[in-house]
Amino acid sequence: MQQTDNLPKNAANYAPLTPVSLLERAAWIFPDKVAVIDDDRSLTYAEFHERCRRLASTLAGLGVGFGDTVSFLCRNTHEMLEAHYFIPMSGAVLNALNTRLDAAALGFIMQHGHARVLFYDTEFEPLVMQAIATLAQPPRLVAIARSAGPSQGLAEFDYETLCARGDPNYQRPPVEDEWQSISLNYTSGTTGNPKGVVYHHRGAWLAAMTNAMAMQMNANSVYLWTLPMFHCNGWDYTWAVTAVCGTHVCLAKVETREVIARIRRYGVTTMCGAPVVLNSLVNDMHNAGLKLDHPVQFSVGGAAPPSAVIQRGREIGFDITHLYGLTESYGPATVCERQPAWESLPLDQLATQISHQGVRTHAIEGVMVADPDTLKPVPSDGETLGELMLRGNTLMKGYLDNPKATDAAFRGGWFHTGDLGVMHPDGYVEVKDRSKDIIISGGENISSKEVEEVLYRHPAILEAAVVAMPDEKWGETPCAFVTLRDPNAPLSEADVLAWCRKNLAGFKIPHKVVFGELPKTSTGKIRKNVLRDDLRTQP
Amino acid sequence: MQQTDNLPKNAANYAPLTPVSLLERAAWIFPDKVAVIDDDRSLTYAEFHERCRRLASTLAGLGVGFGDTVSFLCRNTHEMLEAHYFIPMSGAVLNALNTRLDAAALGFIMQHGHARVLFYDTEFEPLVMQAIATLAQPPRLVAIARSAGPSQGLAEFDYETLCARGDPNYQRPPVEDEWQSISLNYTSGTTGNPKGVVYHHRGAWLAAMTNAMAMQMNANSVYLWTLPMFHCNGWDYTWAVTAVCGTHVCLAKVETREVIARIRRYGVTTMCGAPVVLNSLVNDMHNAGLKLDHPVQFSVGGAAPPSAVIQRGREIGFDITHLYGLTESYGPATVCERQPAWESLPLDQLATQISHQGVRTHAIEGVMVADPDTLKPVPSDGETLGELMLRGNTLMKGYLDNPKATDAAFRGGWFHTGDLGVMHPDGYVEVKDRSKDIIISGGENISSKEVEEVLYRHPAILEAAVVAMPDEKWGETPCAFVTLRDPNAPLSEADVLAWCRKNLAGFKIPHKVVFGELPKTSTGKIRKNVLRDDLRTQP
Repeated sequence: MQQTDNLPKNAANYAPLTPVSLLERAAWIFPDKVAVIDDDRSLTYAEFHERCRRLASTLAGLGVGFGDTVSFLCRNTHEMLEAHYFIPMSGAVLNALNTRLDAAALGFIMQHGHARVLFYDTEFEPLVMQAIATLAQPPRLVAIARSAGPSQGLAEFDYETLCARGDPNYQRPPVEDEWQSISLNYTSGTTGNPKGVVYHHRGAWLAAMTNAMAMQMNANSVYLWTLPMFHCNGWDYTWAVTAVCGTHVCLAKVETREVIARIRRYGVTTMCGAPVVLNSLVNDMHNAGLKLDHPVQFSVGGAAPPSAVIQRGREIGFDITHLYGLTESYGPATVCERQPAWESLPLDQLATQISHQGVRTHAIEGVMVADPDTLKPVPSDGETLGELMLRGNTLMKGYLDNPKATDAAFRGGWFHTGDLGVMHPDGYVEVKDRSKDIIISGGENISSKEVEEVLYRHPAILEAAVVAMPDEKWGETPCAFVTLRDPNAPLSEADVLAWCRKNLAGFKIPHKVVFGELPKTSTGKIRKNVLRDDLRTQP
Repeated sequence: MQQTDNLPKNAANYAPLTPVSLLERAAWIFPDKVAVIDDDRSLTYAEFHERCRRLASTLAGLGVGFGDTVSFLCRNTHEMLEAHYFIPMSGAVLNALNTRLDAAALGFIMQHGHARVLFYDTEFEPLVMQAIATLAQPPRLVAIARSAGPSQGLAEFDYETLCARGDPNYQRPPVEDEWQSISLNYTSGTTGNPKGVVYHHRGAWLAAMTNAMAMQMNANSVYLWTLPMFHCNGWDYTWAVTAVCGTHVCLAKVETREVIARIRRYGVTTMCGAPVVLNSLVNDMHNAGLKLDHPVQFSVGGAAPPSAVIQRGREIGFDITHLYGLTESYGPATVCERQPAWESLPLDQLATQISHQGVRTHAIEGVMVADPDTLKPVPSDGETLGELMLRGNTLMKGYLDNPKATDAAFRGGWFHTGDLGVMHPDGYVEVKDRSKDIIISGGENISSKEVEEVLYRHPAILEAAVVAMPDEKWGETPCAFVTLRDPNAPLSEADVLAWCRKNLAGFKIPHKVVFGELPKTSTGKIRKNVLRDDLRTQP
């Protein structure tokens, strides 16, 4: 064969990868199968596809063109799922907003992301009103009237009216380039201002397929939405469940009783979530003496599940898989693949193995733990700390309008996660410490710097340091260490918390305030590791 | 977001897809797991990977550079599996040769494909000697000494010696472009001379992943090699089994007793094959009153499995899936996805449903049955015949050095399969007639034109037409209709068959010769459909 065989791509032998095609395929094969179960309705794949086509057809009329950002503020409902298809279908970019953010953060994101339209559940109308008040070019508004009823005069359009008016036979424009942006997900990152992580169609398709495979899903899979869809597009399961023609079970609020009821009612096979969700669920079921009547796969990200949770979980019927990822890696990047030999281990050793974050998914090409400056991998000894680095097809295009942060993240041809870990002799990575400035509370990233900035703005506070405090329910919560300008000033913990409440979203407010001197390095840097150790050793 | 977000590909966020990476991943995760079971040895994933690295490192020394063709003539053995990794690893292109071809066909292929090196099992040494005798630039020869022992002076190198000498730490060059060619598979096509179908790394990766998903494979999968690896690279299962870190069970010759023994000994879960393999296996087991002790997935291509085979197969423990594909589509392009409602159908209706070729795999973007000239789809009525057409990511780059055939195959942005079928109201395709010139016997394509050309060369034969004759064992066999120049000439069936044996590979020889006038259209074309109907209605 010649080195160049002169056989180029053409319309028949090359199709840009896009998850939109997964819905089209599912609707073709299983038109009458239930695709989505929500509180108020169920949708077959034919209905789901038709609604998405209708909605996609209306976007041009809202002034949305190719590559424009469309924001979406909504819990885990069928509308949020629809957003993952009808917005990319039209060539626009989905910006799913974290429903726990405050108005200032939402406003920042919509301004930074150039949102043209905001779809929102009217439950959040007061928040939306506040958020858009500060914007020079506010987005056009579409209200989703669920339990909170119709918009009180704020929104220009109503979601269901748009859907009814849309074209059920809408023909989407082809995806010309699989590198085309599909979504924009903001992370709090390591600084106070969120960064806009951009995903592409190729990555979303690959993430959907490889995550479906990692959880061994098929057309019989029933996926319960305990993970917010605004987190990395629900770790791509918004697309993965459709890829296998499974069933999405929506869940607006994660409450143990509701979760158990849906697992039983709908025969849920698969779910994902933060440690806090797994812990609560397992502990509540254990305490109530409840067991599952069929096995359920549970993939948990973030902190390692404690052995008690693994043991109780297994007794109840949960098959727990630990994984690691971040917004920049479309969610899951490494998965703790189970080795056959582990099954014969005593529980504590099994728990140790499962607590490792594992090995690369099919869509990740390389994982290493290395010196961040030299990029030299640390020895695979399970002891030497290095920075966890990734490369592959499910890493972001970059940060929107932030070339400096993008360049830093991709320095040397590897994505620098900012997380410290070790490489075990078996090739499994273990994350030892979250990057020092991030607190993960109930699956939400909290930038300690952002909380510190608020504290520093208080006139009586001289210095402040915020670190993660272990918490049985939330995994971690922020703890504030504060030095007062005047040690005798009458500033109480309640005063500090009240100040935070005025300036921060609820989940970012410290759960504890400690007054006193802060430990420093010789060069004057606050030694946060000492503060963290103090919290761990104190009762 | 701006229409151009200025976030290009880089080494961290883009990796060309290649199935070589699947072996690297499997060896990383499961170094000690059995990857390959062959007659003479088993290989763990670490060993399998190391052998492939060693062998890849030797190719440069054999004069093989990037994009060069390396031919491989071998049954379903571990060496043939290794070829699917070590050859692409080095940047070269694998040309797996059909072991049933005659010397002339093998010579044609190696010449047309510019083979630099031929690896061959010494079992085929006499055939190889004949095949290379005619070549102006014969390939360098590497002998694989299995049961037939070492080369009798023909080969320059010995496979195991090369492997032992190779570099176990060989670092492969990166795949720069996922469109890079990975394999070259010759099909008999519709004319006598085989056409060289070129696959690329991207397609091979996608085919591996989507075929693994279609068969719901995972790390517990044990795959028995009843399908020749030289057929579309074993329908990509050479790569798919490794993708899921499963186990390959080799099988040099498909004999029912050996198949049953291996299914039991190794806990085989998955296999593929031509209808003849499925039929023999099911009938032999049924007659002997044997049942499987665990369910086995069997994917069958080609002609639809008869309802008796489906019923018996189910009773024995086979879960049968029917699919459709051709060399140009990397094997499977449509799969008969099972609908939940079918399970309650009476067997004859279930068999009818399963006999349909189904719906597109995840890697195929479009399937239609259409008028080949206007490309207008036929109505989905299950009755109107049209040509089956495909587009998507697992269609060949094109035919090597054959722009005319490539252009014709991709006319109008669709791949024209040459097969006639209907589209059912449920969106499932059914192939009604193989393209008129192809006979599929025991899973092998036979070009009727090639056989006719041989017949036409006989001095006593005036006209000849070869069509498919239904055959319980082989699915189809060739039947020759012959008109003699002198109707009273003393030419017997035995004479015709002897002539064919001298000029054709064994499996292409007609099983029946009918003498007489040939039916013609008004414009003088032979009406093969009349001949086929005669064969069907005759006992």
